[in-house]
Amino acid sequence: MKRRKDYLINLWEKYTKFSSVPNVISFVSGRPGCKSFSLALPKIEKVIENLYCSPLSFDYSPPEGIKQLRESISMKLQNEKLKMPPKNILVTCGGQQAIDLLFKTLLAANDSVLLENRNYINLEIPILNCLAKIKTITRPINSLKNLSLENLIKKVKPKIFYLVPDFANPTGETITLEKRQLIARLAKKYNFFVAEDQAYRDLYYKKFNLLPPIAKFAPRHTVTIGTISKIIVPGLRIGWLGLPSRLFPIVLEQKKAADLLTSTFNQLIVAGFMEDKAKFQRHLIKIRFYYQKKMISLLDCLEKFMPDSFSWNKPAGGFFVWLKGPKSFNSQRFFLKAIKNGAAFMPGSTFYFRNPKKNDFRLSISSVENNQIKKGIKKLSKLL
Amino acid sequence: MKRRKDYLINLWEKYTKFSSVPNVISFVSGRPGCKSFSLALPKIEKVIENLYCSPLSFDYSPPEGIKQLRESISMKLQNEKLKMPPKNILVTCGGQQAIDLLFKTLLAANDSVLLENRNYINLEIPILNCLAKIKTITRPINSLKNLSLENLIKKVKPKIFYLVPDFANPTGETITLEKRQLIARLAKKYNFFVAEDQAYRDLYYKKFNLLPPIAKFAPRHTVTIGTISKIIVPGLRIGWLGLPSRLFPIVLEQKKAADLLTSTFNQLIVAGFMEDKAKFQRHLIKIRFYYQKKMISLLDCLEKFMPDSFSWNKPAGGFFVWLKGPKSFNSQRFFLKAIKNGAAFMPGSTFYFRNPKKNDFRLSISSVENNQIKKGIKKLSKLL
Repeated sequence: MKRRKDYLINLWEKYTKFSSVPNVISFVSGRPGCKSFSLALPKIEKVIENLYCSPLSFDYSPPEGIKQLRESISMKLQNEKLKMPPKNILVTCGGQQAIDLLFKTLLAANDSVLLENRNYINLEIPILNCLAKIKTITRPINSLKNLSLENLIKKVKPKIFYLVPDFANPTGETITLEKRQLIARLAKKYNFFVAEDQAYRDLYYKKFNLLPPIAKFAPRHTVTIGTISKIIVPGLRIGWLGLPSRLFPIVLEQKKAADLLTSTFNQLIVAGFMEDKAKFQRHLIKIRFYYQKKMISLLDCLEKFMPDSFSWNKPAGGFFVWLKGPKSFNSQRFFLKAIKNGAAFMPGSTFYFRNPKKNDFRLSISSVENNQIKKGIKKLSKLL
Repeated sequence: MKRRKDYLINLWEKYTKFSSVPNVISFVSGRPGCKSFSLALPKIEKVIENLYCSPLSFDYSPPEGIKQLRESISMKLQNEKLKMPPKNILVTCGGQQAIDLLFKTLLAANDSVLLENRNYINLEIPILNCLAKIKTITRPINSLKNLSLENLIKKVKPKIFYLVPDFANPTGETITLEKRQLIARLAKKYNFFVAEDQAYRDLYYKKFNLLPPIAKFAPRHTVTIGTISKIIVPGLRIGWLGLPSRLFPIVLEQKKAADLLTSTFNQLIVAGFMEDKAKFQRHLIKIRFYYQKKMISLLDCLEKFMPDSFSWNKPAGGFFVWLKGPKSFNSQRFFLKAIKNGAAFMPGSTFYFRNPKKNDFRLSISSVENNQIKKGIKKLSKLL
């Protein structure tokens, strides 16, 4: 029986329990809230009504995904200036399966995966399952000198460099255009794959702020990871991989071995939802606006109420703001005080793969209600 | 990049292409046909109408599965005299994911999985991913002497013994009560896990023929694998693992790493379908009768039309009949002749992990229409 190093997951689960506690204003959860699904619901209902009377909706379908959905995803990516033909798109059960399939296709024992130290924690087991190694970048990628990054890559020799270039979890940061181009160059030079996770990319606040994906600069060395969880609903479990052609057949084999295929019915629902391009774009605008409003509130309140000893970034999209306190500040201890006073957040230490810092934390606007943000931040600020 | 041994899958795919060809009566596919889903459709429609207006139906849900579904599955198993409390049931994306999660939890490099040589082919990659070994039993399990099986187990030292005790794919065979008890005893004595795949178990033709599952005799050493694909619909991708308590948390970790959770919406649909126990039992009776009728036709026709040099088993349930021809018979060559004459089947060689035999083949009644069976068997017999 294999044993996993799971301290990180235990710590994370300890705090996600506080995602919804009565009378606590929670900035904990990074999951989209039910209010945002409501925006998708009327269209989903209509699509389902057209589907559920046909036995074919509940039949098997090809392991790579149904044609209509692969075409819709391809169109969506093309709309964002990324050329990815339907034949390169593999439908998955959400973004997590996309990551797992990719990792287990590419990684052999002792291979390395490079990633930022503060990161999405569910990367760990897929990597350890392959007996591969996690190599962390301890500083924000934007702050690294180009030569330092190249030297690190020369040393680590990664098989995969995993990145969330847009509005990352947990930091909310966006990788600069210069660094994207650099990473693309290095991928070609040192022959590794960039796993470009676009989980939050659709949630930009201003279109002109959206940078081109790394896939654009190194299409043969980048794999695009996508999901509908943040823009439509998470409970249908639909995601995808955009794969260079030479990877497609071997990842497809892993898809078949993992679960044969993704639910036909759910794929048809999502394909129906995305079918009318203009309507889908209008839906995305609504979703963006819904989150942007909340982010503006949050940043306003932080500006007004936070003590001077705290600093934070201003994200250009997504759910997350990362706050740093003075060295003496202990976010796990502060959490206990905050929860008693009716507010909650995620201590930064839950996101570090190695050597967690104690003086930072994450605020998420994904599930909190807009009219609660001011009250919540006031509570936190008062305690600080 | 890892390379798989995939000759088996390529061979299998070559023939499954003939599952539906115009003007060919096909006994190829082992997948349930659309006609059988139609039996489930009216109820599915009703359930969906109650679900699709609530955003909660499309939200995240616990990785182990939703409470209502775990309870319904537990009730279903209890009805079959297997005590498996809801807390031991892990919902998966179909039976394939159940197999994959179990294997990757238990298997380390060089561990062995014991299985019958003629088998479900999608077992191979999940085992090879763990760098584990496939050890095959070359003769039908029922025909082995007890001491031979014990000696084999002593030699192989399996970590997992994978079995489909009821109406197996591809042979249609059922493991005897005596052998079930023996395997349970050996599992306890030599400390391995029986992976008891119940994919076809619900499709028995006569209740008094249904034998107790191995799990009953060695509950701490057996993992139950189940799916709704053959009894409700396959396109919702709902299956499950019934796990001994000590395995539950470590398999759950793998579920989270694989895809976080199974679609909430699909789980709610299936839970709604199974909720009314009496109605669900009536549905199962209909499904059984639907397949039994076809099997009776098939066996009748074989009796009437097949040449004396061919022999076959009489399955007590499920989809499959396994036919053996004289030594000189080559089923792959015969396939080419048959397809030209408007009938198709699966050559036996597609199911062997090692040393395929050439003189056997599988007939499946799952997708063929009842009124086509006689015509199809007549065509095959005439050619033989």
